[in-house]
Amino acid sequence: MTRLRIALAQVNSTVGDLAGNAATVVEWTRRAAGAGADLAVFPEMMLTGYPVEDLALRDSFVQASMATLEATAQQLDGDGLGGIAVVTGYLGQRPGGTLRAGEPVSSAQNAAALLYGGTVAVTTAKHHLPNYGVFDEYRYFVPGNRLPVVRVPVQDGAVDVAIAICEDLWQDGGPVAVTRQAGAGLLVVPNASPYERGKDQARLELVARRAREAGAALAYVNMMGGQDELVFDGDSIILDAEGGLISRGPQFEEALLVADLDLPPARPLPDTAPSPDTPAEPSDGTVMSIHRVALPARPAPSAPFPPLPPLTEPMISPRLAPLAEVYSALVTGVRDYVSKNGFRSVILGLSGGIDSALVATIAADALGPDRVHVVLMPSAYSSGHSVSDAEDLAKRQGLQARTVPIAPMVDAFQAELNLHGLAAENLQSRIRGVILMGLSNADGHLVLTTGNKSEIATGYSTLYGDSAGGFGPIKDVLKTLVWELARWRNARAVEHGETPPIPENSITKPPSAELAPGQLDTDSLPDYAVLDALLDDYVEKDMGAAELIAAGHDTALVDRVIQLVDRAEYKRRQYPPGPKITPRNFGRDRRLPITNRWREPRRDRRPG
Amino acid sequence: MTRLRIALAQVNSTVGDLAGNAATVVEWTRRAAGAGADLAVFPEMMLTGYPVEDLALRDSFVQASMATLEATAQQLDGDGLGGIAVVTGYLGQRPGGTLRAGEPVSSAQNAAALLYGGTVAVTTAKHHLPNYGVFDEYRYFVPGNRLPVVRVPVQDGAVDVAIAICEDLWQDGGPVAVTRQAGAGLLVVPNASPYERGKDQARLELVARRAREAGAALAYVNMMGGQDELVFDGDSIILDAEGGLISRGPQFEEALLVADLDLPPARPLPDTAPSPDTPAEPSDGTVMSIHRVALPARPAPSAPFPPLPPLTEPMISPRLAPLAEVYSALVTGVRDYVSKNGFRSVILGLSGGIDSALVATIAADALGPDRVHVVLMPSAYSSGHSVSDAEDLAKRQGLQARTVPIAPMVDAFQAELNLHGLAAENLQSRIRGVILMGLSNADGHLVLTTGNKSEIATGYSTLYGDSAGGFGPIKDVLKTLVWELARWRNARAVEHGETPPIPENSITKPPSAELAPGQLDTDSLPDYAVLDALLDDYVEKDMGAAELIAAGHDTALVDRVIQLVDRAEYKRRQYPPGPKITPRNFGRDRRLPITNRWREPRRDRRPG
Repeated sequence: MTRLRIALAQVNSTVGDLAGNAATVVEWTRRAAGAGADLAVFPEMMLTGYPVEDLALRDSFVQASMATLEATAQQLDGDGLGGIAVVTGYLGQRPGGTLRAGEPVSSAQNAAALLYGGTVAVTTAKHHLPNYGVFDEYRYFVPGNRLPVVRVPVQDGAVDVAIAICEDLWQDGGPVAVTRQAGAGLLVVPNASPYERGKDQARLELVARRAREAGAALAYVNMMGGQDELVFDGDSIILDAEGGLISRGPQFEEALLVADLDLPPARPLPDTAPSPDTPAEPSDGTVMSIHRVALPARPAPSAPFPPLPPLTEPMISPRLAPLAEVYSALVTGVRDYVSKNGFRSVILGLSGGIDSALVATIAADALGPDRVHVVLMPSAYSSGHSVSDAEDLAKRQGLQARTVPIAPMVDAFQAELNLHGLAAENLQSRIRGVILMGLSNADGHLVLTTGNKSEIATGYSTLYGDSAGGFGPIKDVLKTLVWELARWRNARAVEHGETPPIPENSITKPPSAELAPGQLDTDSLPDYAVLDALLDDYVEKDMGAAELIAAGHDTALVDRVIQLVDRAEYKRRQYPPGPKITPRNFGRDRRLPITNRWREPRRDRRPG
Repeated sequence: MTRLRIALAQVNSTVGDLAGNAATVVEWTRRAAGAGADLAVFPEMMLTGYPVEDLALRDSFVQASMATLEATAQQLDGDGLGGIAVVTGYLGQRPGGTLRAGEPVSSAQNAAALLYGGTVAVTTAKHHLPNYGVFDEYRYFVPGNRLPVVRVPVQDGAVDVAIAICEDLWQDGGPVAVTRQAGAGLLVVPNASPYERGKDQARLELVARRAREAGAALAYVNMMGGQDELVFDGDSIILDAEGGLISRGPQFEEALLVADLDLPPARPLPDTAPSPDTPAEPSDGTVMSIHRVALPARPAPSAPFPPLPPLTEPMISPRLAPLAEVYSALVTGVRDYVSKNGFRSVILGLSGGIDSALVATIAADALGPDRVHVVLMPSAYSSGHSVSDAEDLAKRQGLQARTVPIAPMVDAFQAELNLHGLAAENLQSRIRGVILMGLSNADGHLVLTTGNKSEIATGYSTLYGDSAGGFGPIKDVLKTLVWELARWRNARAVEHGETPPIPENSITKPPSAELAPGQLDTDSLPDYAVLDALLDDYVEKDMGAAELIAAGHDTALVDRVIQLVDRAEYKRRQYPPGPKITPRNFGRDRRLPITNRWREPRRDRRPG
């Protein structure tokens, strides 16, 4: 066996920041070199960030990505790092293709390259393009059709390394099958795989299976960090060819995973091959070839082989518990949305209820309490505990608090409009939205919305009122999970000998919008445990009414909740983004028409 | 030659309204039968409406569509219409497939069927799936791979009719090529092809070329009506096999196009074929087959061949002039959004400026003036002419007008917040948004937003202020086109001897948001003629900065406007839908990340 030292750079890339992302590649390659690595691997679309959406159709951006790739290869060499093989994702283009947005065929590619000795030694493109859920890759990319197998020099010989990208690992056949045919010793896979609850377990099982199928060690490196509604959780993985775990990265943190892999030495190839490409059998109904490239030995003078520094045991990061994992995703999503968009602070309305309490706590954990501004906006219907609970929370966490009673504004509108019922309730909520937006405009804070997924699903929110804001931290969190997260966060504080950040009363009191005298959520909505179970089946699992009833949900409730959810589509269309934590968020994941007369048939109705 | 009388039903379908759409098929088939047609053709996805988006992934909806198809065949027969061959689009499913949203592979199909004698005689599915612009069909559909060629009985024999769907006509090869190989006499093509300015000319040239390529007469039927941001313009076309125009439908109206086609009689086929399917050469790199089906002769007793009623000259509708065409698209979009979503009336703020004047006029043309409510909301900065121009407009058109001065609300907020500058300007705009939403909630009006595309592009609007509302009629209309449309509408009134609906002063005065003393748009933005030309190149044509400068735009202006457009993405994400009239609207057509550090490089900068 031949030993290769690999370093996976689980880093945070920013969409569009080519120079910054390239600098990250150079910096982390330096760390990898310091750890004695022969090979460093970066995530999918590392140089551009992911997903770049329609930037992939803009010629200037694609050209800049490719120029950045070349410049990065040169800079690595100039910095004395040319002797380490660096695999990185980038936005590429099929040679000879043209780009124009809105045209049926784009020629952009979701590409990866291996940089070595100051040059781009080989490039490849993703073979399987995801076009479901949040992904639209058929809109942007031409699929790749060859598997590069690169002969990488190491201290005691050379090993053959194949490169595939993200979805190539999730689909049967294709690059995984061809890796086995090529006899590669290692398959490296750059990823930008968004977080979903419980995905880490599915991911580990998948990559272990694919390592066995490929008959090769497998190195899976995932991006870390937030990008609009997506959060990348890291969780990079290195496995041996039997699927045995060698190293695993942390969740929601940057990390360098370094491991020594004992791999089969590269076998001599026949010299007679007329071309570096040989046909393969991807067994997925497509045509693919194997593209072999041998890297030259590292030049002795500029980068002599140093003795490998001793390697400590490869990192095997413990998994976060389920609630800690979700909470970390939300904190990461908020922190990166704020920092990558150039905000210095956030502002939100604090009602004393659990939703705004949790959002404030997430924001304080993401940014520090001095960057979290909260506004108490009591009305005539606010209970005494609303104000005291909100004040208690602000004091516990050291948030920047301010109180703006809304009665004078309500009176000014009502003198002209004389609104009643729901219109009067919404008025109060919208006045609060105007106050927050005014303070945001005056002081540059990002407004955080505090709506949870149960409310957003059922339309139990006011357009331009509580839904006003730039980012919705708990947009994808059902109400029952809001409570669980609050309890978990308080318990964690107790474990660490700290004051629980959220007042117990905010967790235990019955939820109320406090827009009318004595109002409770349960006046209009069923118990949240019942509602959330139904929403999970209707929204996440896309069950029809008959299926929902067969699954045991109450018939009348199914009818009512489906109607509420369907009728609130227009509100969701105007809701800000928030971090996706489930397999189906209200965003790119779920695309329904607003104008939609479809009414789910019950079992006993004739369809049509 | 053998004569076939064809009827194209250019009708308005509603997404999700399976029963209503099926009733439309029956009703218009009855009209076609009354006109003596042998064959009636309905648009793409007629039974479900188009686009159904993620409803295509819901099993209950797909099953209901297929059940509706069967039921429609039976009802046609029950109504004595079983002897007419009816081609209609619907949502189908590949046999044996399973559906689940968010899964990589859907088994739904964008399908069409021919109904005859109470049965579904043949089905087919779209071969070329558009996945660019506003289309996401790879997300939803499995492509079809066979061309049905149906032997349709006519009075003096039978003719072979091939069926393809929409995009199948726009791409080279595939069903068009196979139609020629099959020797079909007629190719019928159901479409749901959204309106864009000038598309009708491109469409006519395309279908004429495809008729010649197919070597067959061609009948192109397009949907009519609005669906969220799309407007289908009709413009159905019947051509002979040389591409000569036989009939053309009106734009933005329902219509039945009836024509007699002299077609080559169906030739006897070898009886020895083991299966109805024979391989074809689609010449687009895919595998396709020809699927031949012969319809039985019409049963004599239940539907004896009546003598064909005499046919008047086939309809050749005149084309609308360019501005009339755009205006009709906007009226159609508003009318259908309002009616299909169950609203009875609309409300909007009337400032005396041109944008709200045009939106009010469009709404009045769409719905009638008694269903259009306008609110004048003057502030301390409103000029005298603002109020008088708005009052003048309301009086000219007979709109339901009301005045709500905003000073008391401004004072109530400012007593607490003491906002200045932009924050104070936005406050006024948001107070107006709250008033409109309050009246909407109280009385059930749909709020129309009045922002134009130039403003929305540059972010020259207030989130939750003037951008508040459910539908934005001029969202895709650049400011210079707003003026053109206003002038055109007034001129049309004069032509018809009516009072011009828009006060001349609203058209001629310099545009101003009137949120600060003496404010003019030109304080912050370049002249709209200059701005709009640049926006057209940057947004519509997706040019990079270097290209824009090379095209003659001012360098400093390019930098500034690109920055404005890019930074306003978060506002656009929360903007309501509005009718698409250009090749690139701010909606499904243009999908950019909010978190985006890409800055367009000028020619003199190194990329990266």
